[in-house]
Amino acid sequence: MQGLMQNWPLRVSSIIDHAARYHGGREIVTRSLEGPIHRYTYTDLRRRAKRFASASSQLDLRPGDRVGTLAWNTYRHLETWYGLMGAGLVCHTLNPRLFRDQLAYIARHARDRYLLLDVGFVELAEELQDACPEIRGFVLLTDRAHMPATRLRGAVCYEELVEAGDPDFEWVPVDENAAAGLCYTSGTTGNPKGVAYSHRSNVLHALAVNGGDALGLRCTDSVLPVVPLYHANAWALAFSAPMAGAKLVLPGDRLDGQSLYELIEAEQVDFTAAVPTVWLALLEYLERERLRLSSLRRVVIGGSAVPQVMLEKFERDYGVEVVHGWGMTEMSPLGTLATLKPELLDAEPEERLRTKLKQGRPIFSVDMKIVDDAGKELPWDGESFGHLWVRGPGVVDSYLGGEGGRILDDEGFFHTGDVATIDAQGYMHITDRSKDVIKSGGEWISSIELENAAVGHPDVAEAAVIGVAHAKWDERPLLIAVPREGRSPDPRDLLDFLRGKVAKWWLPDAVVFVDEIPHTATGKIQKQALRERFEEFRLPEDSGD
Amino acid sequence: MQGLMQNWPLRVSSIIDHAARYHGGREIVTRSLEGPIHRYTYTDLRRRAKRFASASSQLDLRPGDRVGTLAWNTYRHLETWYGLMGAGLVCHTLNPRLFRDQLAYIARHARDRYLLLDVGFVELAEELQDACPEIRGFVLLTDRAHMPATRLRGAVCYEELVEAGDPDFEWVPVDENAAAGLCYTSGTTGNPKGVAYSHRSNVLHALAVNGGDALGLRCTDSVLPVVPLYHANAWALAFSAPMAGAKLVLPGDRLDGQSLYELIEAEQVDFTAAVPTVWLALLEYLERERLRLSSLRRVVIGGSAVPQVMLEKFERDYGVEVVHGWGMTEMSPLGTLATLKPELLDAEPEERLRTKLKQGRPIFSVDMKIVDDAGKELPWDGESFGHLWVRGPGVVDSYLGGEGGRILDDEGFFHTGDVATIDAQGYMHITDRSKDVIKSGGEWISSIELENAAVGHPDVAEAAVIGVAHAKWDERPLLIAVPREGRSPDPRDLLDFLRGKVAKWWLPDAVVFVDEIPHTATGKIQKQALRERFEEFRLPEDSGD
Repeated sequence: MQGLMQNWPLRVSSIIDHAARYHGGREIVTRSLEGPIHRYTYTDLRRRAKRFASASSQLDLRPGDRVGTLAWNTYRHLETWYGLMGAGLVCHTLNPRLFRDQLAYIARHARDRYLLLDVGFVELAEELQDACPEIRGFVLLTDRAHMPATRLRGAVCYEELVEAGDPDFEWVPVDENAAAGLCYTSGTTGNPKGVAYSHRSNVLHALAVNGGDALGLRCTDSVLPVVPLYHANAWALAFSAPMAGAKLVLPGDRLDGQSLYELIEAEQVDFTAAVPTVWLALLEYLERERLRLSSLRRVVIGGSAVPQVMLEKFERDYGVEVVHGWGMTEMSPLGTLATLKPELLDAEPEERLRTKLKQGRPIFSVDMKIVDDAGKELPWDGESFGHLWVRGPGVVDSYLGGEGGRILDDEGFFHTGDVATIDAQGYMHITDRSKDVIKSGGEWISSIELENAAVGHPDVAEAAVIGVAHAKWDERPLLIAVPREGRSPDPRDLLDFLRGKVAKWWLPDAVVFVDEIPHTATGKIQKQALRERFEEFRLPEDSGD
Repeated sequence: MQGLMQNWPLRVSSIIDHAARYHGGREIVTRSLEGPIHRYTYTDLRRRAKRFASASSQLDLRPGDRVGTLAWNTYRHLETWYGLMGAGLVCHTLNPRLFRDQLAYIARHARDRYLLLDVGFVELAEELQDACPEIRGFVLLTDRAHMPATRLRGAVCYEELVEAGDPDFEWVPVDENAAAGLCYTSGTTGNPKGVAYSHRSNVLHALAVNGGDALGLRCTDSVLPVVPLYHANAWALAFSAPMAGAKLVLPGDRLDGQSLYELIEAEQVDFTAAVPTVWLALLEYLERERLRLSSLRRVVIGGSAVPQVMLEKFERDYGVEVVHGWGMTEMSPLGTLATLKPELLDAEPEERLRTKLKQGRPIFSVDMKIVDDAGKELPWDGESFGHLWVRGPGVVDSYLGGEGGRILDDEGFFHTGDVATIDAQGYMHITDRSKDVIKSGGEWISSIELENAAVGHPDVAEAAVIGVAHAKWDERPLLIAVPREGRSPDPRDLLDFLRGKVAKWWLPDAVVFVDEIPHTATGKIQKQALRERFEEFRLPEDSGD
């Protein structure tokens, strides 16, 4: 027997329709790239998105075609999202901070037909266009007055397109499983891989993110997504804020402490989200200028682990609740949030802090498990650590073009590539990357915990730990460290420093000092490069015993 | 191009799985029908629901079969919900307060195979069984010690069934559009009609209801659904509370003021929901006993309009936020909530109050419109009133068996049968039922507003207004009133009383006093019966001019 409820496909257009119909006057405030603050409403955004969607037929784009964007968080960028998805096109956000070759690879691989870009990326696009012959033309996200001279082929002014478009354009009634967005992961090895979000996955993910037990945005909120639109849907805020009818504050390209502070105060922002680096800059600015935050209530921090001192500063010094979050491009992206359960509300401050520093517990619709190398599930005791696998409607099923082959296990879980513990309350804590964990005599050693301990030494600027082959133990840890300028620490001294901070059998078998540790474009340590470099490294004969 | 995200069907079982996995220790507290308070957890509920689901095969039930329930809000009733739906069966809640003949009609029409019931409803079920030969057997929701003597055929003890069941039963992987629940509307005319909820509609509705901008339940909440499970999913709380991992407090059959007060205080309830009658009793009890509410923060009131004095008492005297809600069995059921938008937070108290007394604005995924008799959309000015139509994934597409024929318009909207205004902010206000509104010379007169005005007269106990045929104006209002005991008001005096309270041309053309006004089983005025009774009524010759 079938249910007899309405067929209401889950489409991204329903989000902006709801926002415009029931929160039509709510503001979207942008620090424009041209300088001044730009203000308008959800009604305006929807109308212009419709104009742009209708104009896309002028560009000879057909439903399913990919259109790339190289842009900051502005109202124009957001308009193109809803316009493209509403026209049945696939909005492909490109991360302008990637290496040129990677960008060219990604745009080619996605077969982007058009590229929309801020004028600040014209030079970058000019360098890309020869490598990407399938890009038919470029749309510059500006008005006629700000159009630069450019040798980009088929360069079009965005505002002219919008002006020519039809504000009453009817959204294309795509299937809910049709692709809406495309975002590439920047792996530390191999080529980037494409994650194709569907209309359904975007709407379901936004609903789950907006749950009261998750981020729970309201129409009374003023939301500042510092996290870029090109980072996996701005952590879903591009959908969840309009769905809730929340005011949106978009920072353009000025993410420094002072600019953010001014925007937060002027627009009475009460909710914001970004990576730790951004908040480091804001906190430094606040401290230097002895300023207070009058409206901010919550800050979501993700992308990398929240440093304890940052959490404490926000909560203790500024009265702002920190929500540690974790996710992946492959997860739409939000997976877990470290908000406190009632069991922890009355816990000792120490335990509350420990929990808030974990990556958190899953939002509804996300499920997770940790397993050993044989695929056996490990207990949720906060101690056992294993490969973290996740499942849900916002989790990737396969990469674009089937790259990497079948990526789900028999239960439909996706391997995150992280190694984690889960405690009895369901809070997950990432301890390492799966490929970086060191397997010694069947037991696992976390490279990240060793690195964190090592950089606590006053003479160490940066540290990386990799596994090196060992006859008896299979692998043993090698600590590679960059000394602080002008210092030359002693290896024995460094090992002594680690003693007591980690389990005895975790102690690295050798320490090597280097001038530099290699990084990816997004700042991650290139462990694979280190493993290649130290492939022939011989550990001391008696090591590991 | 298709998206490449996981296929994760929207199934009700995923809600209880999430609750048990991530909030396994959270309590479900029931005032049991046997008397004592019963406590257990989501882990327990899920395990027992699985046992019951596995035991359903013993009852020779097949996916898609309907199973009726006649039960109060208890942990056992909730277990049967998740058990039945998880086994691919259709949970059909019957309202024990309906007339016997209606219940028999409904159970027959639904072709219920089994009936689950509280022992308090044994007599009722015994009366039903002969009229419903297709009901194969009856399950009594109690343990062996409390099994009554009964002549019900195939009577089974629920606890024995559960004991025999398999706690590791695998949920039946039904299609997300399969029916999960069934609930009949009790119309004022004609036979009740069946609304078949799907797994998909239930999950989407719960997600929308749990949005921060809607009810936004959290795992830190203690939720008391006074509204019965047989009233359209207990206003979605049966799904939304477990989805959020909230503590559930179930009142059993004791809904009097004292019992509710004691439960609220003992379990530190912070969120509750019911119809105005329930809150009237609670407020009277609190006032009489001079008690305070130490934990309650929010109360959702729906089913009929919130009286202003009730809203003011809760908010002013007890510091409890009132959320006026509106929905229908045909809407899963939640449609609108009168929570304040930021535009109104700083408004004058008068305007805030006026808005909170409206039925509210739609939750995400619900859309609405008001139209005139010709189907033309009316403006959202807070003045124009028209037929209210709604659309969304939680809104009915057709009634069971196709009764009533095609019930959606060309845009996919469903006619609620209500007449309403919508203001510029999107707040909807119900002014009448479509079939009760009086159409005078092409203009509409709200029977409800006239009735509300009339009962303000000190000598009037109850009032009903119906339209009576009129040669010149098509219809004119007739006021039918029941005088207060011992009073005999003068018709002219009553009309004088109304003057100035309603538009001049709304004034009834005649007043008739009666001893009694007929009501339905659920307490609604039977206007159709009144219309039949007064079909031949002659208005004064010069009336309406």
